[in-house]
Amino acid sequence: MVYENMTLEELEKEHAQLLQVYEDFKARDLRLDISRGKPSVEQLDLSMPMMDVLSSDVDYLSESGFDTRNYGMLTGLTECKRLMAEIMETYPDNVIIFCDSSLNIMFDVVAKAYTHGVMGSTPWCKLPEVKFLCPVPGYDRHFAITEYFGIKMINIPMDDNGPDMDLVEKYVSEDPAVKGIWCVPKYSNPTGCVYSDEVVKRFANLEPAAEDFRIYWDNAYNVHHLDMNHPRIIPELLELAARAGNPDMVYKFGSFSKITFPGSSIAALATSKNNIADVMSQMKIQTIGHNKINQLKHVRYFKNTHGVMAHMAKHAVILKPKFDMVEKILSKDLGSMDIAHWSHPEGGYFVSFDTMPGCAARVIRLMKEAGVTMTEAGATYPYHRDPDDSNIRIAPTYISVQELREALKIFTTVVRLVTLERYLGEMNGN
Amino acid sequence: MVYENMTLEELEKEHAQLLQVYEDFKARDLRLDISRGKPSVEQLDLSMPMMDVLSSDVDYLSESGFDTRNYGMLTGLTECKRLMAEIMETYPDNVIIFCDSSLNIMFDVVAKAYTHGVMGSTPWCKLPEVKFLCPVPGYDRHFAITEYFGIKMINIPMDDNGPDMDLVEKYVSEDPAVKGIWCVPKYSNPTGCVYSDEVVKRFANLEPAAEDFRIYWDNAYNVHHLDMNHPRIIPELLELAARAGNPDMVYKFGSFSKITFPGSSIAALATSKNNIADVMSQMKIQTIGHNKINQLKHVRYFKNTHGVMAHMAKHAVILKPKFDMVEKILSKDLGSMDIAHWSHPEGGYFVSFDTMPGCAARVIRLMKEAGVTMTEAGATYPYHRDPDDSNIRIAPTYISVQELREALKIFTTVVRLVTLERYLGEMNGN
Repeated sequence: MVYENMTLEELEKEHAQLLQVYEDFKARDLRLDISRGKPSVEQLDLSMPMMDVLSSDVDYLSESGFDTRNYGMLTGLTECKRLMAEIMETYPDNVIIFCDSSLNIMFDVVAKAYTHGVMGSTPWCKLPEVKFLCPVPGYDRHFAITEYFGIKMINIPMDDNGPDMDLVEKYVSEDPAVKGIWCVPKYSNPTGCVYSDEVVKRFANLEPAAEDFRIYWDNAYNVHHLDMNHPRIIPELLELAARAGNPDMVYKFGSFSKITFPGSSIAALATSKNNIADVMSQMKIQTIGHNKINQLKHVRYFKNTHGVMAHMAKHAVILKPKFDMVEKILSKDLGSMDIAHWSHPEGGYFVSFDTMPGCAARVIRLMKEAGVTMTEAGATYPYHRDPDDSNIRIAPTYISVQELREALKIFTTVVRLVTLERYLGEMNGN
Repeated sequence: MVYENMTLEELEKEHAQLLQVYEDFKARDLRLDISRGKPSVEQLDLSMPMMDVLSSDVDYLSESGFDTRNYGMLTGLTECKRLMAEIMETYPDNVIIFCDSSLNIMFDVVAKAYTHGVMGSTPWCKLPEVKFLCPVPGYDRHFAITEYFGIKMINIPMDDNGPDMDLVEKYVSEDPAVKGIWCVPKYSNPTGCVYSDEVVKRFANLEPAAEDFRIYWDNAYNVHHLDMNHPRIIPELLELAARAGNPDMVYKFGSFSKITFPGSSIAALATSKNNIADVMSQMKIQTIGHNKINQLKHVRYFKNTHGVMAHMAKHAVILKPKFDMVEKILSKDLGSMDIAHWSHPEGGYFVSFDTMPGCAARVIRLMKEAGVTMTEAGATYPYHRDPDDSNIRIAPTYISVQELREALKIFTTVVRLVTLERYLGEMNGN
């Protein structure tokens, strides 16, 4: 660390300077938000032509002649299943189309396991303890679901290849209370990590102690590449798991939220026929059918996966400069200082940033005081507890490149300031 | 009963004649469906102009300037709450807008009570027994929810004024295991009954033994009048209950499913602020927000309740002749026979028909064999058990008036035939 080679006087001078820069930023009374993975207005505009495909002067018949405006077709339009299956790299028969958000599907699947069990197993509400493995840092809304149902969450460290599979295999094979693992296998939230082929294969070959163990495979960013010339492709888990003798071990989740309109798009579950029958036993009680007009609108607009990939290329054109800006500012301001490291994602919506231990919460508080909202410290860990208080999630997509540059200049200043405070505190024996 | 005055010979002749008429119908190989409360194609067409209000060349901002295309606004657009509140006869602050179907809201509210309790009470999954009161005949999908969660259902008889309130009061005040009652207070499914002012007042003044007792007030047909010049108006239960000292006792459900497009519209829960906070504790884990583009579309099209009422008048023009046809054929063919009675709804989607005891299942089987699908016998009762085997739900809305006439001619023939069979069987000591 560069501070180690400086005298106390130099350190105090540096501190005073950083504080001044920070105060100057604060005085500007900025209002910037890099807290959530939201598409920008420009990105939303990309999907506006879709709003013209279903006017009053076209028919609303599915390809089988079904009137999508009325009740029915509980599992979704056949052509929508085909589209979603292409994107999710599986077969239409393995797909159920849901309402607006894959988060809601995940909630419902966990809720069903809690109230009614999985394929005939004991409902989790009747068990003394249920555990989930949580690769960290991870997605706060996943952890919120398992916390809501009182499920004990166990942190699993991740590296650039994905979760620590030795640990995953040990827990899954030895502890029948372990019923699931949350995974974002591609362009992971927040690290951007892409699971290696080896890691995916080891997932497919797990030997769970619990018959109702499932992998909750949230492939939210499967087609969300930053460089469409170099998309990352990972092995398809449903097929691999089936070949490994685990046909029912995987729930895959997919969504159009970050393809068209967040919350107003379509989402899907892809899984085995047994699991589909099991999920349907709940879904047929919940609903007479989801929004098929929205399904039809998406299918008529995109037609197939080629249409979706062409559309994602337009998103990439907007997103790439933002991720480039993050990399540029962070490496320029912090690259030589050895006081932080961060991820270099090739897709998805986030950059994961690690401060020195014990700095993250204060960084985020100072950022807030300077008018920049970031994801709450600890949010990327179960129970909001980051054991090192070091992980920060940067969400660069919503604001403009210029605003992002500004937010990051403040951020690197604050990171240096807080690190230096800690260092000075340690020197003074605090 | 007219058959009582006939000789055996006359009865057997009548039977032979009816059988011949029935066989002639059968030979026509019809395919008619009067099983579900589905709007007709003509009715769906009424809402097609709504599909033009959100094209690519208009803005998607809510009245507060919020971009409805992005994440956020968990409880719904303010203007949509206002619209829904007007229709549901309450205040916008009491309303949460959900996804496509009120059935799903009911499911979620019951599920939450099962897994996490109601406003801090013991989760129902931890209780030895939970009971619901079920006014009968009622809506099969209500009963399916409570059956799914293992809740014991207790039949409550209904008359033209609503449920037997002496019985309701007794159960609710004496048994703390009674946690809810399913109600369709206006144009009830299937009887068409409108709860009297007196009944609604007695509901508001219930004194539940259970603190987590709630009235599940599914006001699905609140604006679905058959004669717009004579709409039935009932007292507003949320307000009445609050005045009676029961501010948190009511969940009200509303939906646009039978105003615009079933499954592709919007739905809402209206309830007290305490209940809203309680429901939100689950909803904020489930979703980042529901389909706001669809909310905006409905609000821009209807503007307010005047727009909705004008729209409902168009539905009434289509629906009234169908209900008139039911009344006409039933009273012409069966009115003088004293072998059946039926309801005379002023709104909603159904006519409830009662045969002599022990006839309904066979009537529906013979109808099916003649190519007319009706709601399964027993469906209007919890556990699909109609103790008298007499109730039949007629859903006249989906097919054309001409087809409906045909279906009803078969129906009255079959009802006479089956009643006569039973009567002859009894005469022969079977």
